[in-house]
Amino acid sequence: MKNSFGSQITVTLFGESHGPAVGAVIDGLSPGIRVDTEYIMKKMEQRRPKDGISTARRESDIPEILSGVFNGYTTGTPLTLVIKNESVRSRDYESISDIPRPSHADYTAECKYHGFQDYRGGGHFSGRVTAALVAAGAIFRSALEKKGIFIGTHIASLKGVKDRGFGDFREDVSALDAADFPVLDKEAAERMRELILSVKEEGDSVGGILESAIIGIPCGVGEPWFDSFEGVLSHALFSVPAVKGVEFGAGFGFADMLGSEANDEFICDGGEIRTRTNSNGGINGGITNGMPIIFRTVIKPTPSIYKAQSSVSMKTLKPTRLAISGRHDPAIIHRARAVVDAVTAIAVADLLSVRLGTDCLADGK
Amino acid sequence: MKNSFGSQITVTLFGESHGPAVGAVIDGLSPGIRVDTEYIMKKMEQRRPKDGISTARRESDIPEILSGVFNGYTTGTPLTLVIKNESVRSRDYESISDIPRPSHADYTAECKYHGFQDYRGGGHFSGRVTAALVAAGAIFRSALEKKGIFIGTHIASLKGVKDRGFGDFREDVSALDAADFPVLDKEAAERMRELILSVKEEGDSVGGILESAIIGIPCGVGEPWFDSFEGVLSHALFSVPAVKGVEFGAGFGFADMLGSEANDEFICDGGEIRTRTNSNGGINGGITNGMPIIFRTVIKPTPSIYKAQSSVSMKTLKPTRLAISGRHDPAIIHRARAVVDAVTAIAVADLLSVRLGTDCLADGK
Amino acid sequence: MKNSFGSQITVTLFGESHGPAVGAVIDGLSPGIRVDTEYIMKKMEQRRPKDGISTARRESDIPEILSGVFNGYTTGTPLTLVIKNESVRSRDYESISDIPRPSHADYTAECKYHGFQDYRGGGHFSGRVTAALVAAGAIFRSALEKKGIFIGTHIASLKGVKDRGFGDFREDVSALDAADFPVLDKEAAERMRELILSVKEEGDSVGGILESAIIGIPCGVGEPWFDSFEGVLSHALFSVPAVKGVEFGAGFGFADMLGSEANDEFICDGGEIRTRTNSNGGINGGITNGMPIIFRTVIKPTPSIYKAQSSVSMKTLKPTRLAISGRHDPAIIHRARAVVDAVTAIAVADLLSVRLGTDCLADGK
Amino acid sequence: MKNSFGSQITVTLFGESHGPAVGAVIDGLSPGIRVDTEYIMKKMEQRRPKDGISTARRESDIPEILSGVFNGYTTGTPLTLVIKNESVRSRDYESISDIPRPSHADYTAECKYHGFQDYRGGGHFSGRVTAALVAAGAIFRSALEKKGIFIGTHIASLKGVKDRGFGDFREDVSALDAADFPVLDKEAAERMRELILSVKEEGDSVGGILESAIIGIPCGVGEPWFDSFEGVLSHALFSVPAVKGVEFGAGFGFADMLGSEANDEFICDGGEIRTRTNSNGGINGGITNGMPIIFRTVIKPTPSIYKAQSSVSMKTLKPTRLAISGRHDPAIIHRARAVVDAVTAIAVADLLSVRLGTDCLADGK
Repeated sequence: MKNSFGSQITVTLFGESHGPAVGAVIDGLSPGIRVDTEYIMKKMEQRRPKDGISTARRESDIPEILSGVFNGYTTGTPLTLVIKNESVRSRDYESISDIPRPSHADYTAECKYHGFQDYRGGGHFSGRVTAALVAAGAIFRSALEKKGIFIGTHIASLKGVKDRGFGDFREDVSALDAADFPVLDKEAAERMRELILSVKEEGDSVGGILESAIIGIPCGVGEPWFDSFEGVLSHALFSVPAVKGVEFGAGFGFADMLGSEANDEFICDGGEIRTRTNSNGGINGGITNGMPIIFRTVIKPTPSIYKAQSSVSMKTLKPTRLAISGRHDPAIIHRARAVVDAVTAIAVADLLSVRLGTDCLADGK
Repeated sequence: MKNSFGSQITVTLFGESHGPAVGAVIDGLSPGIRVDTEYIMKKMEQRRPKDGISTARRESDIPEILSGVFNGYTTGTPLTLVIKNESVRSRDYESISDIPRPSHADYTAECKYHGFQDYRGGGHFSGRVTAALVAAGAIFRSALEKKGIFIGTHIASLKGVKDRGFGDFREDVSALDAADFPVLDKEAAERMRELILSVKEEGDSVGGILESAIIGIPCGVGEPWFDSFEGVLSHALFSVPAVKGVEFGAGFGFADMLGSEANDEFICDGGEIRTRTNSNGGINGGITNGMPIIFRTVIKPTPSIYKAQSSVSMKTLKPTRLAISGRHDPAIIHRARAVVDAVTAIAVADLLSVRLGTDCLADGK
Repeated sequence: MKNSFGSQITVTLFGESHGPAVGAVIDGLSPGIRVDTEYIMKKMEQRRPKDGISTARRESDIPEILSGVFNGYTTGTPLTLVIKNESVRSRDYESISDIPRPSHADYTAECKYHGFQDYRGGGHFSGRVTAALVAAGAIFRSALEKKGIFIGTHIASLKGVKDRGFGDFREDVSALDAADFPVLDKEAAERMRELILSVKEEGDSVGGILESAIIGIPCGVGEPWFDSFEGVLSHALFSVPAVKGVEFGAGFGFADMLGSEANDEFICDGGEIRTRTNSNGGINGGITNGMPIIFRTVIKPTPSIYKAQSSVSMKTLKPTRLAISGRHDPAIIHRARAVVDAVTAIAVADLLSVRLGTDCLADGK
Repeated sequence: MKNSFGSQITVTLFGESHGPAVGAVIDGLSPGIRVDTEYIMKKMEQRRPKDGISTARRESDIPEILSGVFNGYTTGTPLTLVIKNESVRSRDYESISDIPRPSHADYTAECKYHGFQDYRGGGHFSGRVTAALVAAGAIFRSALEKKGIFIGTHIASLKGVKDRGFGDFREDVSALDAADFPVLDKEAAERMRELILSVKEEGDSVGGILESAIIGIPCGVGEPWFDSFEGVLSHALFSVPAVKGVEFGAGFGFADMLGSEANDEFICDGGEIRTRTNSNGGINGGITNGMPIIFRTVIKPTPSIYKAQSSVSMKTLKPTRLAISGRHDPAIIHRARAVVDAVTAIAVADLLSVRLGTDCLADGK
């Protein structure tokens, strides 16, 4: 498999930015999962918030379900959703198809597809494809929530500005779900927005760190070798465009800790075994231990900037200067959180289904 | 799949610390790959160096090849290698099977396997299983080297002590391959060793950050969604015990950069398209761009420490104190590099084979 | 995987008879494969020939390609094709959703999907889904033909009427490709058509045996255990609705042969090793030997007949009589050949790609 | 995957006839499945019965379990079993490695592995590998029996001599399990044995048809497209050496039936929906309907015969005559039934686990 994810439940993404549509096929869904269009649309709104920052193209982006849903519930057969591409501009992409944009996939696509790739607007590499990913993820997320499993993500850090950490998980996750700009501390949020807008003024861009929590997941999920919880989830997360790092619990901070500081001692809390601290982010030996799963992903600055950059003609190998015109966002981190939440939901659903079977996600089970 | 890795070439690990053996089965190998026992043994020595630090059990650890090799070359049928467990101590593990060691997999194994797990010495979660992983990885690594692809890893940071970064890649990778303690700067190496020994005195442990380079990999390897180079490699890396974070190129450092700083501009160098900087670690859009692949993994401090820790009886839920006796290492990071190199070789071989076919690894092709 | 086929190249089918569309997603295609709409439409016409027998619904059935094709060639990213459902009748299916039709999937769908299945017109089990399968198969078949690999299928036997066997393979395969009713002997064709029409008069139905040849396939394709050529192809063939048996070469006829009769002796013919006879149908030990691949599939009589049959209410368990109204074909065997050819093309493409890589199908390679 | 089978539960076979061992790795087993060595040995005895017909090499063939079992139960981690090769004769295989035996895999192995294959005694293609398959299958079969699912196979036909069909399924399956020579009718058994012995006299060989029943399987197992019950089971069955055809229910007999004869009408029997007849062999639309699963496999005559045959030197392409010396069986059909039962158990376990999860096979669930 190449453009698919999951061993029990499989999501395949398709589509190009300037082709007829983007979409996803989900195979392995149990019958009887409620598919709530309003819920899906709400998650899709998180991907293109009305925030005064984004300049992304406005499309209705309503996913059309072509198969696998009947009377509002999954049938258990492959579910295909399609999002039509509407406001495709007929710009002259051919003239620029030869000059790869720095840190974009233009050059690697040429290496891989030998000129057959649809280069218009990033083609299959376009962030547009994440619209389908968020829609697909929403179906899993809704099913997980009925099992008491919730996912939430905030901007933990953005060019020096830091948000507070998670406090009361349930409250924070719920607040993030309601927020257009997913930051827990209001003041930090304001400073981040200002920073982004000032970067926008300069024609530059910025990235940041997302921190996510998964709460309510039972212990015992994940496999010892290879399909560890961390391995499967990171595999999914690195598909989110611009993600260049993933860490769990204390993550890279472990490098400065002693074992006696890093170890999470076991305690009994209300008749349940828990850990006093959670440096391991809820995972021991690749398997969930019942504590909240905590992980962080780093989002690199949006590669599309207005400033002129050096590049090379792929045909002539001559150096040239390139200024990327058109609309592009000075930051996508607040939009990326919707994609992080989506792939997390898919990975969690898949991991849960290994031993319990895909039926474990059906309503009322 | 659960305990297997790879879509074109599949490695399955098996075995328990105190069972008869650990081992690996490799399926999908091309016929005609030279299997050099001496080469394999050399890589296995990197996993248990004579370093004055490790106290790991001394076993001959010679992998026995049960199938798939004939006259010194792979046959193209599944290759099975087995490493017998020799110096298994008949300690009374049952008495301690009830008290989970903090940050080990004892508790999560109980959650997952409901008491059926082999709890002796960590069972299937034991670092002992990585002996088979290193042996399997060596077969791939040897084949990759014949195609001009080399992998090298050093300890970039250990509780504040930092090694220098990669300079001349070929020289550095070669030096690391020859080193027992994989650090590029001799002085840094000395300080790290001293630090580890002082931590050992205290009965404590320490982790650190490994930095790896893959050189010679062609451009165009990796898939746009899900099976990105980063996604597949991180999936493999999180199987290395104690890895809690993976980052590529500038990694988490991207959070403090502007797009104009982070983007890697294209240049033409000796008739080839390259990038001036390499903040993206050789990967754009999930696909290799021909530059060296650079990534870092964080290794948490070894959870086995001599200091007493709090835990809980899994049967009675009563709190208790636990001191882990026996031999254990104050640091495993220098040994972990052999495992990081091994899983990297497996992931790279698999990624290369997607479009080129598994035959691409055969000698003389 | 559930509704997908292939390890190197993956085809996922989706859609329900009375939903918005049926379709297929193909992942793992090499870039640079010509996608010829006319060729695809020609193969789709073989699935609904103008033959005076079929009464199937007339839809334009033009597959719309949503992704993965640019300027007439595959891009190497997932190719999605969709066929809209047009002439969906708004019959009152609910009233009959309770009485399962004998030998249809109504009852087993209820067992599996617990009432969530789309029961209208057979839902996901409808032969309508094979329209997408034939379209997907045509893309592979066209690519295989450029490599000199051709597939042809005729009706070998139909209720006692037998066609002649393959003679000159190239000529016969070519003739079958041009035929609406795929029978090699004209007289046999006429008698089969008469037989079908007389069965139609009685409101009954008939099946038969299809015999297929794959020519031009190189030797060495297939794997020794599990993914044998026979295993992978039969896996695909049993997805063709109504197929209940698959045999290779002499097939069930081997039961009455001696080893000395059954063995195919090797000879040298024009500088190439071949076999004198071909009882093994071109496959030894699960791997192609360079001779034409010969296999037969049995198609059971269409389960939809006009005669009244006994059934049971799934709610009340009360017995009842059922007469299936609407249009249905007295025979689908001549239409099924298009589906057999399609899944054969998919299976062959997948098997070829294991060692050679998916690039082996690109034009000009 | 190449030499592996199963999507939920994966069995990988390894080993060569004259290498150190043959074996299997099973991944995806639930913890808590009893592994009964006596039961396994009993099934292995069915593969080499004391029957006066077989001349197969006598080895102790006791599978050694290297991993995944603790205190007599599966742990849930990969289970590896190994059967050492003991009585390997040091015949001069090299001299004959150039002349492929008709209908064996010698020539196709050369095509596929380009001279790197272990040609001694058939190498990886040797029937010897089925010893590991039968041992692996026995673990699944034992688990299935605790869930009330039983598998039984008899020789339905052997060169004109026919056994009676299944009568009382439970009794017949039980009787076959106890029989060395699996034929239901004693007189037919005697005639078959005589026929085999007379064929042996002539230095020739014979095949036949095996008929199998799976009883106790619930309805709703199998997937609509591709992973149909028939597709998955046939995929497995074609791995049994010498199988060249698979049919379900009426199978190829459907070609001579009318729809009104072939359809299985539904009835209510003791509060359960069943079918009056079982022409579909317990499967509708690729999914089990609760009736016994009935299928037949054809076994071609053993290719090893004492009579001289024509062949060709693979090096010089010169024709030659070949007489296969050594011990070989005039019939393996009675031994093959053990292998058919084994792969059937594996396929059924895998199919059952798709929706229910692999835990569905654990004892006491």
